[in-house]
Amino acid sequence: MYNVDIGKKILSANEEFALKNRHFLAEKKKLCLNMISSPGSGKTTILARTVTELKGRLKIGVIEGDIQTEIDAKRIRAAGAVAVQIETGGSCHLSAAQVSGVLEKFPVDEVDVIIIENVGNLVCPSAFEIGESGKIAVLSVAEGDDKPIKYPALFAKAKVLLINKTDMLAKGASEDFDIERVKADAYKLNKDIEIFPVSAKTGDGMSQWCDWLVNAVEKLKSD
Amino acid sequence: MYNVDIGKKILSANEEFALKNRHFLAEKKKLCLNMISSPGSGKTTILARTVTELKGRLKIGVIEGDIQTEIDAKRIRAAGAVAVQIETGGSCHLSAAQVSGVLEKFPVDEVDVIIIENVGNLVCPSAFEIGESGKIAVLSVAEGDDKPIKYPALFAKAKVLLINKTDMLAKGASEDFDIERVKADAYKLNKDIEIFPVSAKTGDGMSQWCDWLVNAVEKLKSD
Repeated sequence: MYNVDIGKKILSANEEFALKNRHFLAEKKKLCLNMISSPGSGKTTILARTVTELKGRLKIGVIEGDIQTEIDAKRIRAAGAVAVQIETGGSCHLSAAQVSGVLEKFPVDEVDVIIIENVGNLVCPSAFEIGESGKIAVLSVAEGDDKPIKYPALFAKAKVLLINKTDMLAKGASEDFDIERVKADAYKLNKDIEIFPVSAKTGDGMSQWCDWLVNAVEKLKSD
Repeated sequence: MYNVDIGKKILSANEEFALKNRHFLAEKKKLCLNMISSPGSGKTTILARTVTELKGRLKIGVIEGDIQTEIDAKRIRAAGAVAVQIETGGSCHLSAAQVSGVLEKFPVDEVDVIIIENVGNLVCPSAFEIGESGKIAVLSVAEGDDKPIKYPALFAKAKVLLINKTDMLAKGASEDFDIERVKADAYKLNKDIEIFPVSAKTGDGMSQWCDWLVNAVEKLKSD
């Protein structure tokens, strides 16, 4: 007769690697954030500006996920941070195994936080854990204020929502985007989500997000 | 001894349904377009405006693909066209089987063209044929002019590229978006692609795209 432990969850290969990455990062006490959005919401611009604004306060390491090209990693390096590119070669999201491969050679001890910019896709990346401490959702005002209710999965899971390109509202473009509606819909899905309206282009609102990031790193270190 | 025909391609379930849809639509001589873009590029607004501008010239039927909600189908019906919603319930692209299920009950004989608005996702939908005569790519100027080289699959396959939200350029938002760069990169991937800069909001450029659509329907009918 056999005893079968039905309480034990069988992990997928991706979940195994995510767990491995999570253990590795927890041991090092490093915050790791998985940044997810549609293409063109401004993830890379936000990251480059965050690196610049936090120079001297926080050392940020970036892992860039893209289907093709190394454009984004180059932009981050130009801003002064370590950046490693993963080209998925067609795949619509980063896998935990890909991230694991990069973490093995990443100068983890030299940075305070690792931010992983996932492939531009509001849907698939939110279904694949990569070992992150939390997800950062980015939504630009140009995309419309109905996105949390149309694509709820990411907003329900994210620790932070950055509403980007608020400079467009000031210019009278995307004037039908209602920030209060987005906030209300996001809170309905996720009462603990932190929401920061920002313009990575002008810098407006970036200091609140940067302060949140510094505090999150401090908190993890002192835990 | 067995003879194995290695020349015969084994079709996936999705390809089988795509073929079935294609045969059905070819028999009816109906143009069917698969519209693909990131969330928030303006697919639904383009469709609603196209329906309005072509009233009396072309009867358009719309199949709306969304992960959740029937918002988009309602917007199309308000513009005066038949619209059926498919809620994928989490899936990041429409399958040919889902489209086949809708086509069985769709008033195909009463429309001149069927436009299928796929789930908002620049990546996955381009990998799944659904029986379409061609793909329409939509890119808004707010998304940045590097998208064809970063996400080449869709631009390499599309019959038409609509560059939307050109009104933002006029307002001085997204002023770093270079339409000529997008055109050049798209032509490099796909020399036959038809490109129309439009603003579905103001109507600017819509008549060229509408004329293309009317001609494409006429051409298929007379073939």
